[in-house]
Amino acid sequence: MLVRFQPHNREVQVAKGENLLRAAMEAGVYIQASCGGEGVCGKCRVLIEKGEVESPRAPGISEEDFQRGLRQACQTRVISDLEVRIPVESELDKRVIARTRERVGGGRQVSHQELESLVLGWCFNPALHKHYVEMEPPTTRDNRSDLSRLLLALKKAQGLESISVDFHLFKRLPFVLREGEWRVTATVVQTRMESQLSEYQLRGSRRPKLTNLEPGDTTREHYSIVLDIGTTTIWGQLLDLNKRATVAEASDYNGQISYGDDVISRIVYSQKPEGMKKLQESVVGTINGIIRDLAKKSGVNLDRVSHMAASGNTIMTHLLLGLDPKYIREAPYTPVANFFPPVRAMDLGLTMGKHVHLYTFPSVASYVGGDIVSGILGSGVYQRKPLTLYIDIGTNGEIVIGNSEWMVTAACSAGPAFEGGGIKHGMRATLGAIEDFRINHRTYDPMLLTIGMVKPKGICGSGLINTVAEFLEAGVITANGKFNADLPTRRIRPGPDGMEYVLSLAEETAIDKDLVITEVDIDNLMRAKAAMYAGYVTLLQSVGLTVGNLEQVVIAGAFGSFIDIERAITIGLLPELPLDRFLFIGNGSLLGARLISFCNEMLDDGERISRMMTNVELSESPEFMNNYVAAMFLPHTNAEEFPGVSQRLFGQK
Amino acid sequence: MLVRFQPHNREVQVAKGENLLRAAMEAGVYIQASCGGEGVCGKCRVLIEKGEVESPRAPGISEEDFQRGLRQACQTRVISDLEVRIPVESELDKRVIARTRERVGGGRQVSHQELESLVLGWCFNPALHKHYVEMEPPTTRDNRSDLSRLLLALKKAQGLESISVDFHLFKRLPFVLREGEWRVTATVVQTRMESQLSEYQLRGSRRPKLTNLEPGDTTREHYSIVLDIGTTTIWGQLLDLNKRATVAEASDYNGQISYGDDVISRIVYSQKPEGMKKLQESVVGTINGIIRDLAKKSGVNLDRVSHMAASGNTIMTHLLLGLDPKYIREAPYTPVANFFPPVRAMDLGLTMGKHVHLYTFPSVASYVGGDIVSGILGSGVYQRKPLTLYIDIGTNGEIVIGNSEWMVTAACSAGPAFEGGGIKHGMRATLGAIEDFRINHRTYDPMLLTIGMVKPKGICGSGLINTVAEFLEAGVITANGKFNADLPTRRIRPGPDGMEYVLSLAEETAIDKDLVITEVDIDNLMRAKAAMYAGYVTLLQSVGLTVGNLEQVVIAGAFGSFIDIERAITIGLLPELPLDRFLFIGNGSLLGARLISFCNEMLDDGERISRMMTNVELSESPEFMNNYVAAMFLPHTNAEEFPGVSQRLFGQK
Repeated sequence: MLVRFQPHNREVQVAKGENLLRAAMEAGVYIQASCGGEGVCGKCRVLIEKGEVESPRAPGISEEDFQRGLRQACQTRVISDLEVRIPVESELDKRVIARTRERVGGGRQVSHQELESLVLGWCFNPALHKHYVEMEPPTTRDNRSDLSRLLLALKKAQGLESISVDFHLFKRLPFVLREGEWRVTATVVQTRMESQLSEYQLRGSRRPKLTNLEPGDTTREHYSIVLDIGTTTIWGQLLDLNKRATVAEASDYNGQISYGDDVISRIVYSQKPEGMKKLQESVVGTINGIIRDLAKKSGVNLDRVSHMAASGNTIMTHLLLGLDPKYIREAPYTPVANFFPPVRAMDLGLTMGKHVHLYTFPSVASYVGGDIVSGILGSGVYQRKPLTLYIDIGTNGEIVIGNSEWMVTAACSAGPAFEGGGIKHGMRATLGAIEDFRINHRTYDPMLLTIGMVKPKGICGSGLINTVAEFLEAGVITANGKFNADLPTRRIRPGPDGMEYVLSLAEETAIDKDLVITEVDIDNLMRAKAAMYAGYVTLLQSVGLTVGNLEQVVIAGAFGSFIDIERAITIGLLPELPLDRFLFIGNGSLLGARLISFCNEMLDDGERISRMMTNVELSESPEFMNNYVAAMFLPHTNAEEFPGVSQRLFGQK
Repeated sequence: MLVRFQPHNREVQVAKGENLLRAAMEAGVYIQASCGGEGVCGKCRVLIEKGEVESPRAPGISEEDFQRGLRQACQTRVISDLEVRIPVESELDKRVIARTRERVGGGRQVSHQELESLVLGWCFNPALHKHYVEMEPPTTRDNRSDLSRLLLALKKAQGLESISVDFHLFKRLPFVLREGEWRVTATVVQTRMESQLSEYQLRGSRRPKLTNLEPGDTTREHYSIVLDIGTTTIWGQLLDLNKRATVAEASDYNGQISYGDDVISRIVYSQKPEGMKKLQESVVGTINGIIRDLAKKSGVNLDRVSHMAASGNTIMTHLLLGLDPKYIREAPYTPVANFFPPVRAMDLGLTMGKHVHLYTFPSVASYVGGDIVSGILGSGVYQRKPLTLYIDIGTNGEIVIGNSEWMVTAACSAGPAFEGGGIKHGMRATLGAIEDFRINHRTYDPMLLTIGMVKPKGICGSGLINTVAEFLEAGVITANGKFNADLPTRRIRPGPDGMEYVLSLAEETAIDKDLVITEVDIDNLMRAKAAMYAGYVTLLQSVGLTVGNLEQVVIAGAFGSFIDIERAITIGLLPELPLDRFLFIGNGSLLGARLISFCNEMLDDGERISRMMTNVELSESPEFMNNYVAAMFLPHTNAEEFPGVSQRLFGQK
């Protein structure tokens, strides 16, 4: 049977009776299917445009929709050649790293559109404007210079005065004016975004600056590219600066991964001969790939991109800009700078026109970077009264506590467990990673879900949290993270690293050996969660507050998006608070970059945030060590900090 | 006999009785000797430190000086081995192009020191300052970024706020701070000089900008390089920004000469494939040579040069900055721009540190360039009430008329005669060029002086003026520039190009043929002088004035420096005015560049001058053509315009 998927126009030969979701998988076409094929999530809807299938009407599909051919792919078998259309809402990005899914386990996940409404008082007013102007051609009586003519026209037509001009335009100026027959489009920016940045000046006078000139009227094509430069993944969006819209999205692994998984190993590598150069080239290479992707997906001419904005942690920012991060790693951990001037994208090796400058978010300290500043901006935390914990969980966990009045921040080194590091069968959240887990409370047999619904290859960070929480709920492990060896199951057994639980037997895996979780793994997860917990508790203590004072918890970052809050509370990673106080904003870093791209005034807010944050060095804090030791328990040594969980698990109050 | 010259430590073997001036010539040591060896100018004074000479006491040498060994070299014969010291004032630059000489024929020539006093109200206040600061090293309690630490120190110690930072410094920052053990020297500039320039903003707010950072205290070494980018010659000076002093001077022919003698041929060449690139590379190559020379002569470390300032005509400025001059040549003659932002010197290919920016003087129009603006600035014309004619005589003659209230300007294409072009035996003012001329009024035999006192190779522009004036005075030619063939001399004879006068017979020349001046040559000179004269007369008319209203004539430019005013008046090139109204400022272009380098505030004045000048396109003026035709006579068709000369020559009133 030949099955053709639209709008991708991909086809695949399958046996009659084949499951349509599997057919899509084989064709390399992805469909959202978060329940693992059980047919309950109802997300994998497709439209059978031609051909015959066998499929029951799922409860979520109306009679009318069913009549016009709507089916749940996971419940559908192929009977004849098919033409299948995947509606946009059922489509996932083709990359696993770009997966999104319905939030489970409580907390509120909001869309980017909603998120932008979190921030108050911003208006759609990009820093860059395109102005179309017409001039009289020069005559002997009026043979002022080409530049004078243009500036005079901009003054007369647009009221723009005291414009400065980027030197690269001088070379093109006479030709653009004549090619356009004295009708041109000028891109003008408020200077500070494109020019030098002062570390001490917040709201300076902003003189307009001419950054680009195009023949004819191109005002309708006016774009920006925003980037989140993650240690692991880089995300990019192409934005329409006329329509306040996202035109395309793309992402890829940061090419620096091959030089080290985390920021510390990147710094180490940067000190090798040519190390800085290679690291910069690889991140630039990744961004250039994303730029190509964005152009391809959108059909937008990259010459019409007017500027770029990026946010990343302090180390990523240093490496992108070619600044040596050497002293970030050595006590007392000083970055070169926390504020960075906009840089001509081309000078970094980015494949953009000469007119494009890259604005980089300011950092706070060596381990609290522009991504956090961007997230605080994008989440509006800095504008609101409620005491908020903003948390980005990862190897380098970043924490902010505060509100519109004040903010303290800290980074805590949680170790790589959340990213699958230091875990026997740990892996990144990619194809084949166990991401969800249930246990039969009688037989103690597992129920697994992997990313991509393929045979398991390992377990990712969120999967590990879910698994350990489930272990705890089912009494498979005790509060100190040790297996209960007395349970009537062969799944729990002694292994080379101590006791272990067999998640998946060799023949069921893609790795041809038993896939296990060991007590060492659980211990590593406990260290990681204890570091995060101790981090925000210590920060709270530093300002005389406790977890109970938190009115809101904002969880940012790709990893956070996949966390099940209830389970994260169960293991003591997140504080025990009513679920409606939790807000997931996803990629907060990208969110802030979008905002400043759409709204000039937000630049000031971003810089204000960076200045208002007080950094606390946890590594120097004895309180942190105490809190850390106290948190090395599931959920916590002090049951009062997790009364609900403790009550449920141990009957304690 | 062995003669050793100091301070050069050069020696030469000569025969006993040899002339000491000739010995110096042979040793490659130059001594100012403008009278051609006649002993009357008294400039070639040397100090005989050891050995015996034969020399009369010249009238200008006191008995006391004579006793301590002072002699006129041209009057001295070598008797024994000698040790000779050349006092600074007798020394010429080793390059012929750098020659200077006592003014003859009236007019006042002033030194650079005097010249700087022509400009009112300027103070020694360079735009760039060096600040030495000390910082506390970072600690865990104070681990702000390196940049923050530096800026805070500059704020505390120097009161500098809102400093912006050149991005190139970010990369070096952590290493310079640590190399200097937290003691560094920061170079700070008032932004506008180093940053983008607005064509419409005159006196903007000037935020300080950090341009350079050096470990330790380097405040005592703070230099600038100023350049006059001439079509033919480039002059450079290394200035000490602490001492307001010239440390070294150097000059060389503009490497672009091989692509064309004048600006028009350069523009033509620029339109060939790679033409722009080659032209830019050759002028940059010349400047780099001058920079090397300046470093060598001064012993100054070029890393201690903080900035550069250059002035040149509009075409030279375009080509240096890599701007296409194409439309300067095509009616209606529009330059790309008249104001240019400072450019990183390194980006142009100049061998300077990354911190060095090149400031370029603004132009007025396609053929009235930054060199004129610089000269007007340097001469103080724009500050004074007297009606002044500022004139730079050359192939492209530039004229300014005005005072502190207003200024009109024009360029007039005089043709290459002043530079020896279009003249049968014309040549540039280099070694072997006839530069002065007298005629025996009875025999009509010539008396020549060549540059370098060598056998004549040709005649240069100033020599041609002197010769033609002398012809006129002696009745060798008539007022319409034709030879008087009736004179009893074989020097006047028919030649292939019509009548000619033999300046030098083949055996007396370095070219092995008779060196002549033809009627065609005289005609070409008349065209050139007529164009200049018609230029300033037309400009005067355009504002309702006449030559008689002129209260001062400022003659700028290398060529002008060698003109004999009286003879220039005789042929009708300069207006007939009392000689004390003439002022020679030499290289006015370099003068203005020095001023802005020494005095920040002068930048504004330079830009104000550029704006206050009204350009008149003479090529479009019917009055100019009339004036030109009327001036095609020696000195002029209308004897009333040159009453003194006419009276003397023709007995007319």
